[in-house]
Amino acid sequence: MTSDTQLKAAVLGASGYTGAETVRLLQAHRLVTAVAASGSALAGRQLSEIFPHLAGAADMPVEKVDDINWAAIDIVFSCLPHGTSQDVIETLPDHVKVIDLSADYRLRDAGLYANTYGRPHSAPQRLVSVPYGLPEWYGNDLKGESLVACPGCYPTATLLALLPLVANNIIDTGHLIVDAKSGVSGAGRGLKEGNLFSEAAEGFHAYGVGTHRHAPEIEQELSRVASGGAIEVTFTPHLIPTTRGELVTCHVRGDADQMHAALAANYATAPFVHVLPFGAPPPDTRHVRGTNHCRIAVYPDRVKGRAIVIAVIDNLVKGSSGQAIQNLNWMMGWDEALGLDQLQPLFP
Amino acid sequence: MTSDTQLKAAVLGASGYTGAETVRLLQAHRLVTAVAASGSALAGRQLSEIFPHLAGAADMPVEKVDDINWAAIDIVFSCLPHGTSQDVIETLPDHVKVIDLSADYRLRDAGLYANTYGRPHSAPQRLVSVPYGLPEWYGNDLKGESLVACPGCYPTATLLALLPLVANNIIDTGHLIVDAKSGVSGAGRGLKEGNLFSEAAEGFHAYGVGTHRHAPEIEQELSRVASGGAIEVTFTPHLIPTTRGELVTCHVRGDADQMHAALAANYATAPFVHVLPFGAPPPDTRHVRGTNHCRIAVYPDRVKGRAIVIAVIDNLVKGSSGQAIQNLNWMMGWDEALGLDQLQPLFP
Amino acid sequence: MTSDTQLKAAVLGASGYTGAETVRLLQAHRLVTAVAASGSALAGRQLSEIFPHLAGAADMPVEKVDDINWAAIDIVFSCLPHGTSQDVIETLPDHVKVIDLSADYRLRDAGLYANTYGRPHSAPQRLVSVPYGLPEWYGNDLKGESLVACPGCYPTATLLALLPLVANNIIDTGHLIVDAKSGVSGAGRGLKEGNLFSEAAEGFHAYGVGTHRHAPEIEQELSRVASGGAIEVTFTPHLIPTTRGELVTCHVRGDADQMHAALAANYATAPFVHVLPFGAPPPDTRHVRGTNHCRIAVYPDRVKGRAIVIAVIDNLVKGSSGQAIQNLNWMMGWDEALGLDQLQPLFP
Amino acid sequence: MTSDTQLKAAVLGASGYTGAETVRLLQAHRLVTAVAASGSALAGRQLSEIFPHLAGAADMPVEKVDDINWAAIDIVFSCLPHGTSQDVIETLPDHVKVIDLSADYRLRDAGLYANTYGRPHSAPQRLVSVPYGLPEWYGNDLKGESLVACPGCYPTATLLALLPLVANNIIDTGHLIVDAKSGVSGAGRGLKEGNLFSEAAEGFHAYGVGTHRHAPEIEQELSRVASGGAIEVTFTPHLIPTTRGELVTCHVRGDADQMHAALAANYATAPFVHVLPFGAPPPDTRHVRGTNHCRIAVYPDRVKGRAIVIAVIDNLVKGSSGQAIQNLNWMMGWDEALGLDQLQPLFP
Repeated sequence: MTSDTQLKAAVLGASGYTGAETVRLLQAHRLVTAVAASGSALAGRQLSEIFPHLAGAADMPVEKVDDINWAAIDIVFSCLPHGTSQDVIETLPDHVKVIDLSADYRLRDAGLYANTYGRPHSAPQRLVSVPYGLPEWYGNDLKGESLVACPGCYPTATLLALLPLVANNIIDTGHLIVDAKSGVSGAGRGLKEGNLFSEAAEGFHAYGVGTHRHAPEIEQELSRVASGGAIEVTFTPHLIPTTRGELVTCHVRGDADQMHAALAANYATAPFVHVLPFGAPPPDTRHVRGTNHCRIAVYPDRVKGRAIVIAVIDNLVKGSSGQAIQNLNWMMGWDEALGLDQLQPLFP
Repeated sequence: MTSDTQLKAAVLGASGYTGAETVRLLQAHRLVTAVAASGSALAGRQLSEIFPHLAGAADMPVEKVDDINWAAIDIVFSCLPHGTSQDVIETLPDHVKVIDLSADYRLRDAGLYANTYGRPHSAPQRLVSVPYGLPEWYGNDLKGESLVACPGCYPTATLLALLPLVANNIIDTGHLIVDAKSGVSGAGRGLKEGNLFSEAAEGFHAYGVGTHRHAPEIEQELSRVASGGAIEVTFTPHLIPTTRGELVTCHVRGDADQMHAALAANYATAPFVHVLPFGAPPPDTRHVRGTNHCRIAVYPDRVKGRAIVIAVIDNLVKGSSGQAIQNLNWMMGWDEALGLDQLQPLFP
Repeated sequence: MTSDTQLKAAVLGASGYTGAETVRLLQAHRLVTAVAASGSALAGRQLSEIFPHLAGAADMPVEKVDDINWAAIDIVFSCLPHGTSQDVIETLPDHVKVIDLSADYRLRDAGLYANTYGRPHSAPQRLVSVPYGLPEWYGNDLKGESLVACPGCYPTATLLALLPLVANNIIDTGHLIVDAKSGVSGAGRGLKEGNLFSEAAEGFHAYGVGTHRHAPEIEQELSRVASGGAIEVTFTPHLIPTTRGELVTCHVRGDADQMHAALAANYATAPFVHVLPFGAPPPDTRHVRGTNHCRIAVYPDRVKGRAIVIAVIDNLVKGSSGQAIQNLNWMMGWDEALGLDQLQPLFP
Repeated sequence: MTSDTQLKAAVLGASGYTGAETVRLLQAHRLVTAVAASGSALAGRQLSEIFPHLAGAADMPVEKVDDINWAAIDIVFSCLPHGTSQDVIETLPDHVKVIDLSADYRLRDAGLYANTYGRPHSAPQRLVSVPYGLPEWYGNDLKGESLVACPGCYPTATLLALLPLVANNIIDTGHLIVDAKSGVSGAGRGLKEGNLFSEAAEGFHAYGVGTHRHAPEIEQELSRVASGGAIEVTFTPHLIPTTRGELVTCHVRGDADQMHAALAANYATAPFVHVLPFGAPPPDTRHVRGTNHCRIAVYPDRVKGRAIVIAVIDNLVKGSSGQAIQNLNWMMGWDEALGLDQLQPLFP
């Protein structure tokens, strides 16, 4: 399946879910081959031993980052935790193009980064210039870039839903409330009691209420397209007992018809963002499961002047690994859907 | 287990989940015995054959409503669908006390009822006087009543969270947004594709967006305690892949400290409503599963002047059958916790 | 994506899960296009309205079978219920090739069919000659055939595990016990209380104990390759709270090393059947989810002379729709993996 | 709720699931009060902080074992891991009665213990005399004992199903195959990747195939009642994506009618073991969820001379904490159902 013209990719942090998903998705990309995988704790084992579902498709050893032969690598997908990611990325040789799936290069203000993530950034001067890889909005800016920051999963869904409304100035930006819900895989593969099946199944709860790190990222990006000043958002995520899936319920003020028109116009040619017809049944996370798609719907509220805008994505695909590949496609000047359009949602 | 001093109860609509749950809970009530069960489609079968988990505890036949020997019945729990419930209740003999778990006697305005439920009410004049059975607020009004309307599951959680805030006038009633989530059992035992395991598992979605029938009920009850005029609420429910559990995330404006103080003061002696300490981890539906408890927590938002108030209940207990029994206890002048306080949440 | 050289397929019974899955999988098949879909109850609606996950990929109307323009159809996938399937298939024009996913042409003995399925077969004389579409064993027999019977889901997993052992005469055929487990999607999209989320989640049970219809099918096929006489099998299926996935635990007598060697040799070149190395962790249904793969492992028991052979498949792919396409590939003389090899298991 | 006549219990290992479940169940026991809880890693925190569902019912600190004031303790429930459990139990003062939920005192042969659990026993001479606390069989032996070994969860279900058949010599003990299934809570609260929601949901697999530690325990106890020599059993457990619930499918040879009669006669007066009528639908784990009940059913197989015997329990109640309390009741000479009979299964 590989050929000489294919680019060679290394996936850092391949023992986590976004790492494994990146490897899985790259199997279907005809211009890129995953040839190296890092994962400090598991170095020395085969990736397909850690993730049996990758057997046949990922029979490569997990290495320590330092052991990777960078001369043979063209592209790096960093699926490392924030903090670690920047520390590694800043040491990579210049010839590799980097797609960072962590939070490390999303915020442009180094002080905000430090406040939000609890440590100073190791390359603060770089923050202001790394492009924010939300391809439906900034794809054209990515061509030729050597480092792209992939948005967080919640910001991806939220921004796809709200950016056209803010940019077109058709919602009241003083009343933005985003009530978000995510499946458990969004919490990663880390070993915490709350992620055990026996604790996460048959129940649900909010978390990070009033304090979640994705709120500043959403505010930064909404403010960027707003005609007025800085925008504030109430952002409240909930943990839902599914593995994949993310849904944001945006409570906004304005005219629902206008909103629908703005969204439909904005994404008319976007291959992965689908604005449902007015009156369609609410989008379900399972309708995008395993794919890079986002579905958005708008509903007028009973209360005059209010509306509800809902977006669903698969947090591991459009919310991370799929969008990372979509960003790579833009960086290389390829069709943005390359390697991603073969995916049909898994239903039931 | 029964004795001569026990009251005899009939459970109408016993083949549904709230019916079965009422029978289950009554096993532990030392002053009431379930002696009759109705269920039109299944009449003639044993209730314990329909619900094997009731074996030993509910070895009674399912009868048609018309076949019940009313002379032997003191109390009726009507778990019938709305519409059917009022039609049956209006024909019952005077000596039976009725607790209605349907929506039929919750709204006090017959016009609003007709608009909301799509048919005129068969006893419109009665609507204005049937007490609304939210016992933490109106328990004292229930003694001696012959018919009590149990609140909807979403209104129960929402009102327990918001009534003290509205009554004390410490939130801005022009900005009430309730983002609600419920397990699948809230949809009942009806056979619909959307409730199949293969369609409800591993996904989630909003429903009734901007149109749900519980919104007018919530508005009616909030307005009742408000100092100003009629209150409007944006209410958006979501279907979550758990069997039981309901959580409302109330996005409000005001001072979180004041809210916490008002809630704590209001429910200081309530046996089933628990206001979590400030800063406690968000309440989880599994912490109340199988019980009549409600847990409420308040969180200040990052955005100044906003707060998030969260309440969790078990939709089949505090959201319906448990609250029905709590209402009966008040009607009879008994301890409100009778038959309900032995329940510990099932965790994990 | 379509071209003039593509064959045109009709999917009958497209409103069920195997129908929808066939449509989903055909999207990726470059030599076949699904152009028609039947579904009596839902005729007139768009298939993508019934199954939103097929939006963009299956924007075709659901028709009544009688309304399909057969002149434009080359291939039929019948996903109809047994009984109905034969009635329709027997009336189809001669030029269409038929892959039957129902049970109607699996049993070669008309009397056994009548006993097992409770009605006489409408084309009993045909039963003896319709090939049994287990492609790893009978793929070579399918070329040019006009009707192929796809095996049941349980028989697929069981036969892949046991046929090499029986054919090589290395297990004691007087002691065959197959303890099987399946996800809920195996029960189809029919509306039964037992398939509701609230009844299927958080519990599990056996069904069809001692009487399941797949037992005669398994016995027929094992007996066919056995050197001795008719083989009997104890077959006990269980319903497991997952959507997809099927696992058979075969309790057998013989030498585990011999079994492993026979299985490994038999499937050495099979693209979809993977025999795990001796000592590998037990195969999990999620390692084949969404794919046409089967994984088989052999374990010696503590009790001398006994072994456990385990096979996992996705019931909707290798257990039905994927295998149906694999059979089509053999019928047409194409690569058997065509349209099926792009699928990576969805994990997590 | 407590009184001077109540016994005081300490629960060791209270930060695990069986520990928490023991505390939960003891709330309803009118003659015992949990007054102390140990848990080394979490010492110093409140138990209700670790397990919010115990709020109000278990507001006690978690202590180190060495810090417990043994003079104030009458009874110990040891929910410690095997190995640790014996080390602690052997140091306890004589006046405390001990119910051990670990595996440490189940096997009577010290050599078998060492082989099975990978370490020599610290009190090997004691093994032969500690009673095996399967109360339906050995309840009468427990009165006055100071240490009782609670059976494993799988052995509990298996032995309840098979002991009457072996003791009455009506099945062929040369052909015993037990195919077992358990919910994830059976794996405890330990942090392992395989127990994460994202890995355990939507899939299932066998484990410990041919090697599980419960097999020797089952063999020991079956052999004890057998008329012939030592009995061997093939035991194969599977991990099922539910939190609670355990089901054993016993494949046996003999006459199903005889088996049913023997089981029904044996448990005619047992408060917690229910033999279903011949022909009843297969028992489901959710029909015993949250209770101390066991349901057993017998089915004749299509293959002559074979039968399937199925038993279901809640692994955390009858499979551990509930049975531990039942054993305590026998030790004290109380009604064996004390504190356990108020539990109705949670359904749906």
